[in-house]
Amino acid sequence: MTASAVVIVSDVIRNGKSVMGFAFDSIGRYSHGGILRERFIPRILNAHSENYQDPDRGGLDPFKIWNILMRGEKPGGHGERPGAVGLVDAAVWDLIAKLEDKPLWRLLAERFGDGIGQPHVPVYATIGHYHSENDIAQLGNDVRTCLDLGFSTVKIKAGGAALSEDERRIDTALGIINGQGSLALDLNGMMSQTEAEIFIKKIADRELAWIEEPVGPLDFEATKAVAQATDIPIATGENLFSAEDTRNLLLYGGLRHDRDILQMDISLSYGIVEYLRILDELKLHGWSRKQCAPHAGHLLAYNTVAGLDLGLHETTPYGDLSSALKVKDGFAEPTTSPGVGFENHPGFKLIFDDIASPLL
Amino acid sequence: MTASAVVIVSDVIRNGKSVMGFAFDSIGRYSHGGILRERFIPRILNAHSENYQDPDRGGLDPFKIWNILMRGEKPGGHGERPGAVGLVDAAVWDLIAKLEDKPLWRLLAERFGDGIGQPHVPVYATIGHYHSENDIAQLGNDVRTCLDLGFSTVKIKAGGAALSEDERRIDTALGIINGQGSLALDLNGMMSQTEAEIFIKKIADRELAWIEEPVGPLDFEATKAVAQATDIPIATGENLFSAEDTRNLLLYGGLRHDRDILQMDISLSYGIVEYLRILDELKLHGWSRKQCAPHAGHLLAYNTVAGLDLGLHETTPYGDLSSALKVKDGFAEPTTSPGVGFENHPGFKLIFDDIASPLL
Repeated sequence: MTASAVVIVSDVIRNGKSVMGFAFDSIGRYSHGGILRERFIPRILNAHSENYQDPDRGGLDPFKIWNILMRGEKPGGHGERPGAVGLVDAAVWDLIAKLEDKPLWRLLAERFGDGIGQPHVPVYATIGHYHSENDIAQLGNDVRTCLDLGFSTVKIKAGGAALSEDERRIDTALGIINGQGSLALDLNGMMSQTEAEIFIKKIADRELAWIEEPVGPLDFEATKAVAQATDIPIATGENLFSAEDTRNLLLYGGLRHDRDILQMDISLSYGIVEYLRILDELKLHGWSRKQCAPHAGHLLAYNTVAGLDLGLHETTPYGDLSSALKVKDGFAEPTTSPGVGFENHPGFKLIFDDIASPLL
Repeated sequence: MTASAVVIVSDVIRNGKSVMGFAFDSIGRYSHGGILRERFIPRILNAHSENYQDPDRGGLDPFKIWNILMRGEKPGGHGERPGAVGLVDAAVWDLIAKLEDKPLWRLLAERFGDGIGQPHVPVYATIGHYHSENDIAQLGNDVRTCLDLGFSTVKIKAGGAALSEDERRIDTALGIINGQGSLALDLNGMMSQTEAEIFIKKIADRELAWIEEPVGPLDFEATKAVAQATDIPIATGENLFSAEDTRNLLLYGGLRHDRDILQMDISLSYGIVEYLRILDELKLHGWSRKQCAPHAGHLLAYNTVAGLDLGLHETTPYGDLSSALKVKDGFAEPTTSPGVGFENHPGFKLIFDDIASPLL
């Protein structure tokens, strides 16, 4: 995969430096560069600043920016476009929060949440990819590492091996967790309805936090059938990229708002402006924000989970980002640096400096 | 908008020249270049030829090519990707038909149709965009020109002006057609359900061939409500780009298979390989191919309508392509040149020569 990064340079100078907004891609969908260069960046650069200023606060209005980005775009077809728009949107929010000199989660809590945000952010660890050698041993090590790091919920891959092999992996993980946490399974949406039903029947007696993407993301009939076949929570949504597609999932997918989990990726779904519309759809259909566990473990998601009181943040404990999180009993502390918080990560600093230098 | 063109150079030499496959973008969705270069073209170029050969016929197997293109792609999110894949798919079909020295419509009829195809291809003309000056006069001229050219069904834009102004446009067009043909309206999916219901109530007494995209393409509840509110056929689908999204439309959109019209764009929906899956979905849900009127008026669609016995082909009578069609009483003759038929159009020849020259 490729990744795109966006930098917005403002005309505000602080400590001798331009205040800038940063955004970095999520994972899973990519090739956003061409679309950004051909469509979205020119629209913003060609717009007059009075058309995207916040009339009350000054500075940028992310909703106006969003409307300019989407000017002339056709309805439907939410694939790569949402990820490209999401990057510009994220850079705008980063910039606004920095101009207000506060972490993004706090700004989101003030504008769209309870004003405070979550002092302890619920997190889980995504691990347990298949290994061609010593798979069970490596899986066991991964689970142990996560528990040692302070996670209580871990998610492992499933559905990519023979059923008996998957059962061995599941039981290995459950044995190590030993009631001190919980296990989720990620099936990555590759099973048919029948395969998913067989799989779920086979593992029905295990205690699981959730089963993720048992079937394809747009197969609402299969999603409904699977949800009817088990009491275990179903998680899905990381491959739906708009409020419209989310609404259809809620209308037709037979999901249960007392337990099922919605994982739309904020960066890949047109950014925070659209995610607020997604939260409106949830409310309209009787769902709590606590059922949201956004995909992909990026800093934008972390800020949104912390600021908007969402249910759970995904992390990968081996990633550069997550290793900076101090986790205890399944919770992490919110970031303290202004904006999204890229400045704490040397790897990102190199990337953004590289993009920004010709602009300064 | 930008447009992408794809050329496949084969190692078959005829009359001293390499036989090549060509594809040119549809309209409405764009920026396919970056995605093609980063993802799809490298996958094909890196594949071994035995993995995409047709074991029975020799040459390329479009279904194997399609699987290679989509290798490692995640499920769902049908936006720009389908248009990029559709271009490679279309170039493959063009090449195969040329290697068999027959028009693509004939090859499609032989492999997936009745073996013969349609000797007279039903066509309609898309005209009647809004003009800032002399709108009604220009609309009248457009309608008259279409009738003179041999079209019997014409489609005009609606929903982009005040209701009274739209009524005047509709009545102007109907007055000129005067029972010698039929009028369709294209609302471009920009109305809310309530707006669409008001609009349809207001024009309910006019005789119309269909009302196109009265509401957003993914708003299946609104689609259903509008279909329930009128006997006039509803057309939609040009902003759905996959068999999965089509299935959801058929399942939830409340459309009526005795009258409503499905307009998925073949080029923008992963090409002919996926369009065959779309036709399978239709069959499964009790729909006839005759209800299909693919979007956008490109030569790929024309070949598919002719070869697979679809209901109607869209054309724009002022375009370079359509002006080559001889239309009589609403029907046109199938093309006779091998492949998709770009060679008859000097504008395309320049573009493809330009792309091919460094490859030869």
